[in-house]
Amino acid sequence: MTLPDGGPGGTPQSMEGKAMHALVERLYPICRSITGDGLRRTLDIIGEYVPLSVTEVPTGTTVLDWNVPKEWNIRDAYVKDPSGRRVIDFRASNLHVVGYSVPVSGTYSLEELRPHLHTLPDRPSLVPYRTSYYAETWGFCLSQDTLDGLGDGPYEVLIDSTLEDGSLTIAEHVVPGRLAEEVVISCHVCHPSLANDNLAGVAVAVALARTLREPRYTYRFLFMPGTIGAITWLALNRERLHLVRAGLTLACAGDPGPLTYKRSRRGDAEIDRAVTHVLRGREHSVLEFSPYGYDERQFCSPGFNLPFGGLTRTPYAGYPEYHTSGDNPGFVTPAAMEDTLDALKQVVEVLEGDGTYVNLSPYGEPQLGRRGLYESLGGRSDTKQAQMAMLWVLNLSDGEHSLLDISRRSKLPFADVKAAAEALLDAGLMEEKR
Amino acid sequence: MTLPDGGPGGTPQSMEGKAMHALVERLYPICRSITGDGLRRTLDIIGEYVPLSVTEVPTGTTVLDWNVPKEWNIRDAYVKDPSGRRVIDFRASNLHVVGYSVPVSGTYSLEELRPHLHTLPDRPSLVPYRTSYYAETWGFCLSQDTLDGLGDGPYEVLIDSTLEDGSLTIAEHVVPGRLAEEVVISCHVCHPSLANDNLAGVAVAVALARTLREPRYTYRFLFMPGTIGAITWLALNRERLHLVRAGLTLACAGDPGPLTYKRSRRGDAEIDRAVTHVLRGREHSVLEFSPYGYDERQFCSPGFNLPFGGLTRTPYAGYPEYHTSGDNPGFVTPAAMEDTLDALKQVVEVLEGDGTYVNLSPYGEPQLGRRGLYESLGGRSDTKQAQMAMLWVLNLSDGEHSLLDISRRSKLPFADVKAAAEALLDAGLMEEKR
Amino acid sequence: MTLPDGGPGGTPQSMEGKAMHALVERLYPICRSITGDGLRRTLDIIGEYVPLSVTEVPTGTTVLDWNVPKEWNIRDAYVKDPSGRRVIDFRASNLHVVGYSVPVSGTYSLEELRPHLHTLPDRPSLVPYRTSYYAETWGFCLSQDTLDGLGDGPYEVLIDSTLEDGSLTIAEHVVPGRLAEEVVISCHVCHPSLANDNLAGVAVAVALARTLREPRYTYRFLFMPGTIGAITWLALNRERLHLVRAGLTLACAGDPGPLTYKRSRRGDAEIDRAVTHVLRGREHSVLEFSPYGYDERQFCSPGFNLPFGGLTRTPYAGYPEYHTSGDNPGFVTPAAMEDTLDALKQVVEVLEGDGTYVNLSPYGEPQLGRRGLYESLGGRSDTKQAQMAMLWVLNLSDGEHSLLDISRRSKLPFADVKAAAEALLDAGLMEEKR
Repeated sequence: MTLPDGGPGGTPQSMEGKAMHALVERLYPICRSITGDGLRRTLDIIGEYVPLSVTEVPTGTTVLDWNVPKEWNIRDAYVKDPSGRRVIDFRASNLHVVGYSVPVSGTYSLEELRPHLHTLPDRPSLVPYRTSYYAETWGFCLSQDTLDGLGDGPYEVLIDSTLEDGSLTIAEHVVPGRLAEEVVISCHVCHPSLANDNLAGVAVAVALARTLREPRYTYRFLFMPGTIGAITWLALNRERLHLVRAGLTLACAGDPGPLTYKRSRRGDAEIDRAVTHVLRGREHSVLEFSPYGYDERQFCSPGFNLPFGGLTRTPYAGYPEYHTSGDNPGFVTPAAMEDTLDALKQVVEVLEGDGTYVNLSPYGEPQLGRRGLYESLGGRSDTKQAQMAMLWVLNLSDGEHSLLDISRRSKLPFADVKAAAEALLDAGLMEEKR
Repeated sequence: MTLPDGGPGGTPQSMEGKAMHALVERLYPICRSITGDGLRRTLDIIGEYVPLSVTEVPTGTTVLDWNVPKEWNIRDAYVKDPSGRRVIDFRASNLHVVGYSVPVSGTYSLEELRPHLHTLPDRPSLVPYRTSYYAETWGFCLSQDTLDGLGDGPYEVLIDSTLEDGSLTIAEHVVPGRLAEEVVISCHVCHPSLANDNLAGVAVAVALARTLREPRYTYRFLFMPGTIGAITWLALNRERLHLVRAGLTLACAGDPGPLTYKRSRRGDAEIDRAVTHVLRGREHSVLEFSPYGYDERQFCSPGFNLPFGGLTRTPYAGYPEYHTSGDNPGFVTPAAMEDTLDALKQVVEVLEGDGTYVNLSPYGEPQLGRRGLYESLGGRSDTKQAQMAMLWVLNLSDGEHSLLDISRRSKLPFADVKAAAEALLDAGLMEEKR
Repeated sequence: MTLPDGGPGGTPQSMEGKAMHALVERLYPICRSITGDGLRRTLDIIGEYVPLSVTEVPTGTTVLDWNVPKEWNIRDAYVKDPSGRRVIDFRASNLHVVGYSVPVSGTYSLEELRPHLHTLPDRPSLVPYRTSYYAETWGFCLSQDTLDGLGDGPYEVLIDSTLEDGSLTIAEHVVPGRLAEEVVISCHVCHPSLANDNLAGVAVAVALARTLREPRYTYRFLFMPGTIGAITWLALNRERLHLVRAGLTLACAGDPGPLTYKRSRRGDAEIDRAVTHVLRGREHSVLEFSPYGYDERQFCSPGFNLPFGGLTRTPYAGYPEYHTSGDNPGFVTPAAMEDTLDALKQVVEVLEGDGTYVNLSPYGEPQLGRRGLYESLGGRSDTKQAQMAMLWVLNLSDGEHSLLDISRRSKLPFADVKAAAEALLDAGLMEEKR
């Protein structure tokens, strides 16, 4: 059976930008929340691309300082005007209902409805995204333009939802490595029809997972609801957290802005050094850690203090389409997702390839020429980057500097430094630090 | 009895800019020096606003490497031209006499007088301020314009001064705190008719002292002559210096320039961190420590190395009016003094409010919502500063970061961080570090 | 006997820019390489200015990871066109022959010659400098313009060279100091007719050596071939390297560009702090260490990690004349060499004069006035630099800061700080740290 490029399938194969975008479009219509069948349907689809192990955690389970909430499901919702027309219609966009709205059915004047209506007066054509997970209420989101056109009513209002004991769903895809130490990539999957936040992140994570072949480290991809999902995963995996060598939360991975890296709480963990080095060659920005944004705020809470950074393109709340109907599949581009994926592949390359070596001929430079590692014609001023990389590796391989350190200090691409190290190992000029 | 706003009185009450400026104007005409009755009269007036304890230290007392000098007093001084007109007149401005001039009475030609005349050729309309405390001499200061208009003489010259054994006067105002540890504010009071340097500093210090109510730390305000006063105080208080937690020399506090903080010799003491954080929101500059300027050079001498910074507006010698007749009450403004006072109040707020706490729910974020500390409607991008402050305090309260550290890292106002800490303490989510 | 200014002679005396330039011109025509009689003739001439001790190290000697190569000598070389004219002529410039070319004699068509001809197509009027020390081959260097004018041939080709067992020559000039600890200045002398690289360095080193009089440290000047010379010297002096307190490789010392300092591998060694402080007052740039350039790459190999920086004007490969016939005596100027020499003299002044002292009156400022160290008239704003230097030395002389540290922190010239320290020592206010 031949799979279309990037399509579902058990066999790892590369996914291009178009395939990632197709996955975004496929997931976009589903009404996700922090629990419920929309979330399960989403994970089923992801599972067509990469095998997932799914955990259901019952309502009421204590997870750290929290409890798993009731499960929310919704079938339909509307506000009908006196003529019977759906002026607000869940079927048109699931953003129209405040997430976790309790069931409601009745007739309301506009005046009575107003406290339940949410708009963005400063962006009057967009529908906002709102939730109320932990305070039982109900509401509708609509554009200010729509609101401005509404008469006094009365309106027939329906929210056909359930909020009942059930479970919270989290899913993991693991690529086993030679080592038990783990690199964790975490994507929130709780948002309904928002493309950049975070279907693009999901698509890029899936694409990255499919590139990994017998890696050194174990790679764990987490697809779970924001906040309560991360808290649940942390609660369930507390005993295993010492295995986390590096982590990234991946979000907003498809908008046209440049990549943005937010440092871990530690500030200079290996993941921080790896990502900032990889981003050197691209337009990008680096933010210091702050305890807000995505689930890095849970992974980096002081009790855990895991080495988790955050990778986005334009960061959270940094674009006008953020948490609105403007964040649709047209807002994310195949090229941007490819760029995010490419940076992540390089980060993986650094994590996989890093190591610390000891120069066995540390007194003066070893004579590279007689080992075929140095060009014989002297006097030229355009020494090749490969030779420069060898000199840097030899000079700094005193057991105190890793290849990543050497890349950073020499400002040479990691791949060149790695290749130099391998040539020097082959020539017997270095050995791995014990 | 009702006191006019900011007027003298034993009861603490706030002083506004106008009241501070009125104090500057009241003190301005007095002929102060490092000893003498002008200094005592100045302290008497300050004592009307805040109670002072005054110490007289006799001439000849050994203080560190120095000896208390003779006491200087002056009643009159002039240079009369052949027509009997006072062409230089102490009664017009006490700057006209070189401080510590020995008595003189006689007739001099202009040629003979010249070595005793001091002018500012580059600012020809201003009278300079000059002293000669430790080399017995006499002299007059005048504008270059006046000098240019003088004929050959002869001139009748009188300095009716005395330089005799007496004492040096230093005064302290103490606001007792719950703790014996002290915050020290030091103002030099030895300059004659110079408003910014340092009557404005005195007025602001008085105003600050009157705002303090049952503070945590003990606050000590020093009003004493520059250099020899600080040296004398240090000599007398050597055994108590371990109680000094933080200190500031306060000078040039009323000119219209922006605030300037000069770091302590330690460079990153608590006072340095507190002041630089408070100044963040204002136009200001920060200078590294240097062993010149005001009495921080004594407090920060290497044997003491006290955590003393220096707060000024435009720093010493940084404005053309510095140490001239141009530094008069018109040069200092109520608004500038209020701004200095406001910054100092915030510094006090930081010192008083700082503390280090331990998050008792450090694994993941605690659920603030069920404690009423987090708004229930999710999805909004305009998270309130108060909630951000809570997240920062929770994230960094690992026993290693004080609230000031958290303010600096989060770039949030200290008051917000403090309020967040109090809310979290009330909710039982934190405890003070033992 | 009177010596012309800067001329040869056993008696130390100063050499001005003109004299340094004359030495460059004198050495320029000699065909130097990493071994051979041209190198020896060069050292003979240097020895006329400063006494040298010369070491010959036989071919085949193992030096670190290398072996001393065969000795190369050349008498003549040419390419004659069919009319018998020397179209490439060693006698016109020794750059025309690839260094270490093996003997050749025969007739070649242009087509056959081409693989042996080296040009610079992007700088068509210049002849490149090329060598092939460790791969036996032969070749000619010529301008692209000349190559473009050559017909098909046939050409008569001669290289009258020998490549035989012999020895490698290295020379040292030592100025003994009161201490055995050494400051090492290393110049490569292996390049044929290239003026800036490195005859200017040689001339400046010679001039510096002649200024030294009974120094505190021992000064060792190394004149030796690049790479293999440094490796040989390091191999022969391994047991003595602990005596190296500071070192500099000196190259490209005469071009009109500003001075450039390249830090040692340590990055903040005494030599790094001394040179960067001296350069503060001049247009200059500072580069981080890199394992390429001149022999600092050997001295700073990880096994030795000696505190060696590199001083140049425009750094290696940073000017279009680099390693071409454009680097002739007209490219280097007396003024530039004097500037390099002046900076080096100041570096020596810092190394010689640095020390750490303890203020014996550390509580408050000592009363400088009664010791004649402070002017008596107070109030002036133009405090003299000498007084500022004294205050800085007193304040930072706590046994933790050297005079160089104090110069750097105060941004005062080292000479002023040193003079202040001497005045304070004379006054009994400080003592040297034990």
